Amino acid sequence: MSYGLLKGKKGIIFGALDEHSIAWKTAKKCHEEGGEFILSNAPVALRMGTLNQLAEETGSEIIGADATSMEDLSNLFDRALEKFGKLDFVLHSIGMSINVRKGRHYTDLDYGYLEKGWDISSVSFHKVMKTAWDKDAMNEWGSIVALTYIAAQRVFPDYSDMADNKAYLESITRNFGYFWGKEKNVRVNTISQSPTPTTAGQGVKGFSGFLRFADEMSPLGNATADECASYVVTMFSDLTRKVTMQNLFHDGGYSTTGISQEVADKFL
Amino acid sequence: MSYGLLKGKKGIIFGALDEHSIAWKTAKKCHEEGGEFILSNAPVALRMGTLNQLAEETGSEIIGADATSMEDLSNLFDRALEKFGKLDFVLHSIGMSINVRKGRHYTDLDYGYLEKGWDISSVSFHKVMKTAWDKDAMNEWGSIVALTYIAAQRVFPDYSDMADNKAYLESITRNFGYFWGKEKNVRVNTISQSPTPTTAGQGVKGFSGFLRFADEMSPLGNATADECASYVVTMFSDLTRKVTMQNLFHDGGYSTTGISQEVADKFL
Amino acid sequence: MSYGLLKGKKGIIFGALDEHSIAWKTAKKCHEEGGEFILSNAPVALRMGTLNQLAEETGSEIIGADATSMEDLSNLFDRALEKFGKLDFVLHSIGMSINVRKGRHYTDLDYGYLEKGWDISSVSFHKVMKTAWDKDAMNEWGSIVALTYIAAQRVFPDYSDMADNKAYLESITRNFGYFWGKEKNVRVNTISQSPTPTTAGQGVKGFSGFLRFADEMSPLGNATADECASYVVTMFSDLTRKVTMQNLFHDGGYSTTGISQEVADKFL
Amino acid sequence: MSYGLLKGKKGIIFGALDEHSIAWKTAKKCHEEGGEFILSNAPVALRMGTLNQLAEETGSEIIGADATSMEDLSNLFDRALEKFGKLDFVLHSIGMSINVRKGRHYTDLDYGYLEKGWDISSVSFHKVMKTAWDKDAMNEWGSIVALTYIAAQRVFPDYSDMADNKAYLESITRNFGYFWGKEKNVRVNTISQSPTPTTAGQGVKGFSGFLRFADEMSPLGNATADECASYVVTMFSDLTRKVTMQNLFHDGGYSTTGISQEVADKFL
Repeated sequence: MSYGLLKGKKGIIFGALDEHSIAWKTAKKCHEEGGEFILSNAPVALRMGTLNQLAEETGSEIIGADATSMEDLSNLFDRALEKFGKLDFVLHSIGMSINVRKGRHYTDLDYGYLEKGWDISSVSFHKVMKTAWDKDAMNEWGSIVALTYIAAQRVFPDYSDMADNKAYLESITRNFGYFWGKEKNVRVNTISQSPTPTTAGQGVKGFSGFLRFADEMSPLGNATADECASYVVTMFSDLTRKVTMQNLFHDGGYSTTGISQEVADKFL
Repeated sequence: MSYGLLKGKKGIIFGALDEHSIAWKTAKKCHEEGGEFILSNAPVALRMGTLNQLAEETGSEIIGADATSMEDLSNLFDRALEKFGKLDFVLHSIGMSINVRKGRHYTDLDYGYLEKGWDISSVSFHKVMKTAWDKDAMNEWGSIVALTYIAAQRVFPDYSDMADNKAYLESITRNFGYFWGKEKNVRVNTISQSPTPTTAGQGVKGFSGFLRFADEMSPLGNATADECASYVVTMFSDLTRKVTMQNLFHDGGYSTTGISQEVADKFL
Repeated sequence: MSYGLLKGKKGIIFGALDEHSIAWKTAKKCHEEGGEFILSNAPVALRMGTLNQLAEETGSEIIGADATSMEDLSNLFDRALEKFGKLDFVLHSIGMSINVRKGRHYTDLDYGYLEKGWDISSVSFHKVMKTAWDKDAMNEWGSIVALTYIAAQRVFPDYSDMADNKAYLESITRNFGYFWGKEKNVRVNTISQSPTPTTAGQGVKGFSGFLRFADEMSPLGNATADECASYVVTMFSDLTRKVTMQNLFHDGGYSTTGISQEVADKFL
Repeated sequence: MSYGLLKGKKGIIFGALDEHSIAWKTAKKCHEEGGEFILSNAPVALRMGTLNQLAEETGSEIIGADATSMEDLSNLFDRALEKFGKLDFVLHSIGMSINVRKGRHYTDLDYGYLEKGWDISSVSFHKVMKTAWDKDAMNEWGSIVALTYIAAQRVFPDYSDMADNKAYLESITRNFGYFWGKEKNVRVNTISQSPTPTTAGQGVKGFSGFLRFADEMSPLGNATADECASYVVTMFSDLTRKVTMQNLFHDGGYSTTGISQEVADKFL
C-alpha cells in the first residue's frame, strides 16, 4: 500500500547494512512513497556489498562516508546538494559500542573504546546536522530523524555504554533541534524503537531472551523494522510539521507498561 | 493535498463545535483522506446548529450524545455499527471545567463543579471506550485518540482543575490502552496540542497573552488546529500501528524548550 | 537512631490503620525525631481500635475525619490549630478503590464506585489542602506529602482505577503546590513508594507475586514501610525546603530499571 | 542547626573552588553534620589556593586529582582508604564546557573541545565510580551524588554542549547505579539544582537575566547553594537508603511550573 507521502522529497539515509536493518526497510518504504535519496554508510560496511541490491531496487546512489569524519560528510552533502538541491529528510541509524563488542562490562569500560563508540553513535548526529547546517542543505519544513532506544531512560544491563550514547543522542536532538526550528523551520526527532533483531542488535548478549521479554511486556507486541519504517515515513511527511525535539516511542506500548499479565504470571 | 490515508476507514469524531474546533478540522481532514465518520457532540452543542455545515461538507451524519451518559453512548455506537460495521478510529475532543467557567480559583474549587468537569473531560473517555469495548466495536489495528494539554505535566495557573482532568485522561489512555492492545490490537494515544484559539480555549483567562508566550517559546511556533488535524490523521492511518499508550506532544517544540532567546530577552 | 530533625514541628498524619501502614511507621518516626502530631483516619477505620496503641506510643491525639467531608476536615484543622497553632507538616496516606475491592475489571468499572474512589483517594488531598489554605493553617516552610505509586506513570493491570486516582493526586500536588509555594512558602510533594505489604495493599490481586517481581527488578530491593517513614521525615525537615511539586521515587531503583539480570534470566 | 546526620561517615568531595561553589557549601554542611572527608579538585584549581581555607575550617585534607585521569583517581582513593577505610559518600560537582568558554555556538562546536568537555563533565563520573568499584571503596548503604541541571531535559540555548554532557552524566548515574545497587547496596543519584551564581555558572552568557527568569518561574524561588548543600546531606544520610538512580529536582518547583503569574504578566 502506497500513498505518495514523500512525492518530490529528497533525502539521505544513513546506516542501511542488510535487509534486516531498519534503515534498509526505511529506504524501501521511502522509495515506495515517492521519495528519492542517497544511501550512505561507512566504507567498511559498504565493502560487504549488500547495499548495492538496495540501491538498485530503489534507484539510489550510494556514497560512502565515515559519519565521524567532517570531510566525508562534507563530500556527501555536496554530492547530495548537487544531485537534488536542498534536502527534505535525513535518517540517522548509526550506532556501535566497541565495549559491548569486546565484551567489556559496564563497570569495566575501556575509555578509548568509550570515546570511539560515543563519537560513532552520538557525536556523528551532531556532525551530520552541523554539515547540513553549514551548507544550508535542508528545505524549510524538512525532517531529521535518528533512531534510539529506551535504554536512554531505563537500565538494561547488557546495553552498557550504548545507553549513555543514546541519552547523549537524544540530547543533541533537542539542542540542535531548537536551532533548526527557530532558524530553518526544520524538525528533529528521535524514534525509540522496540528491540529489533537486526544484524547489529543480535550482537548484544542474551538478545533473544530479551526480545521475548519485551514482546510479552508490550500490549501490541514488539514493533518490527517494517513498522518502524512506516512510522519514519509519517515523520518525514508534511503531516507532522509541528512535532519536534521529541523522543517518540514506537514500541507496542512497552514504555508505559509496568507489568503485563504474561510477565506477572511468571512470578506467581 | 490528499493521500488517501484513511480510504475505507470508518469512525466517530466527538467534539466538533464550530470551524475553530480541532475536531472540526480533523473531520475535514479525515474526509479529505477518504475516511467516513459520524459526528457527535452534546445535545446542547448541537442546538447551535453550526455542525450541520460540517456534516454536509463531509457527507456525515450527526448523532447527539452526552458523553457522560452510557445510554447515549450506547445508542451512538449502535447506530455507528449499524451504519459502518466495526470502526477504525475514534477522536475524543471533549473537555470543560465548570470551575474555570465560573471563575473559581484553584484554591477555591467547588467540588460539585469539580466532579462534573471531571466526568465530562476525563471519565467520558473511559465511558466511550467501555461502550466500544462492550460492543466489540473496533476493528483490529483501529486507533483511538484523545486531545490533551501539557498542563497535565506542568502548572499553568489559570488552567486550574482542567490540568487534573487532563492528567486523569492521560492515565485512562494508558490503562485502557493496555487492554485494547493486549486483547484487540487497538491503539490508544493522546495528542498534547499547543494552546489553540478555539472557542473553548478562549474562555481561559489571559489566553491571548499566554498564546503569545507559547508561540515565542516554541522553536517552530504554536501548532495550529489544521496541523493538529493532519497529525491526528497519521495516528489514524496504518503507518503508526505500534504507537500506543503514548502522550504525543504536537507543540512546535514547546515541551522540550526550557527558554527561548525571545523569552530570555525580556529578562535582560 | 534519632537526630531531632522535627524538634518543635507540629503536624497531622492521615491514614494510619495498623502497624503495617506507612502512615503508622511515619508517625513513629516523626515522634522519634521530635515531631508532635494529631492522628486522623476515617471513623470506620477508627472503630477497629488499633490506632489507640499508636496514639499512646507517640503521645498523640486521635481525631476522626472522613477526608472527603469538608466539615470533618474543618473540625480537625480547628482542633489542630487550637492545640498546636500553625502546622509544619501533613501526611496524606489515603486511598481506596471500590472497583478493585469489588473485583470489577478496569474495562468494566462501575462509575458510581469510580467517583467514590476518586473522591477518597484524590480529591481528599485537595480538600485537605483547601481546608488548611482557608484557615491559613501552615507555617512558612511547612511541608505537605502524599503517598503515591508508579501506576500513575505505567500500567499495572490489577491496580485498575487506582492508577488514574494516583495520576490525579500527583496533578493536584503540582497545581496546589504552585499556589502554596508562591503565596505561603510551603512545599507539596508526593513520594512514589515501592509496593508495600500493608493491609490495604494486600487486597490487590496477585499482590505477593507482584511484590517479588518488583523486588527482583529493584537494584536495592523494594523499599520497606520503615524506610519510607525515614524518607518522609527528610521531606518534613528543614533540609529539603526547596523541593516542591515533585514526585519522588522511593523504590530501590525500580522506576529506572528496564530489566534486571534476575528477571532477564527467567526469559532465557 | 546541626543534627549529626553524618556522624561517623567518611567521604570525598570533588569540585569545591571558592565559597560560591555548591561543593564548598556542601563540605561545610557535611562537616557540621559530623562527616569527615577529603577535598579534591583539579591541580589547576588548587593553585588558586582558596581551598586551603575550607580545608582548615573543616579539618580536611586536600588531594589534587584530575578527575579524567585514572592514575590521579587511583592515588586519591588509595589515600582515602588509607585514611578512612571504606567510604560512605562521594560528591561529584565537576563540569566545564570549553566550547562555552570559548564562545563557540552550539551549531558550530569544536569537536576537540567537545570531547574534552565531555570527558571532564561526564566521563569523570564514570571514572570516579570505576575507581571506587575496583578498589571496593564504598561501604554498604553508601551514597554517591552528582550535580546536574535541567538542561539535560529541556533546551537552554546558551548552555550549549553542557546540556548533552549533563544528559550523559544522568545516564551514567542510572547505569552505574544499577550495578552499585545490585552488588554493593550503594545508591547513586543526581541532584538537578536551580541555576546558581557560582563562579563557574557566571561564565554562561546572559546568566543574570536567566537567573531572574528562573527565580520568577519557581514558586519557591531559586534554590541557593546553601540549600543544595542541605539537600545533599539528606541524600548522604541513612534516611534515604532506598532512593537510587534518580534525578532529583531541587529547584523551588521550576521543573513542574509551565508558567508563573509573574512571567505571564510580561506577555499581557
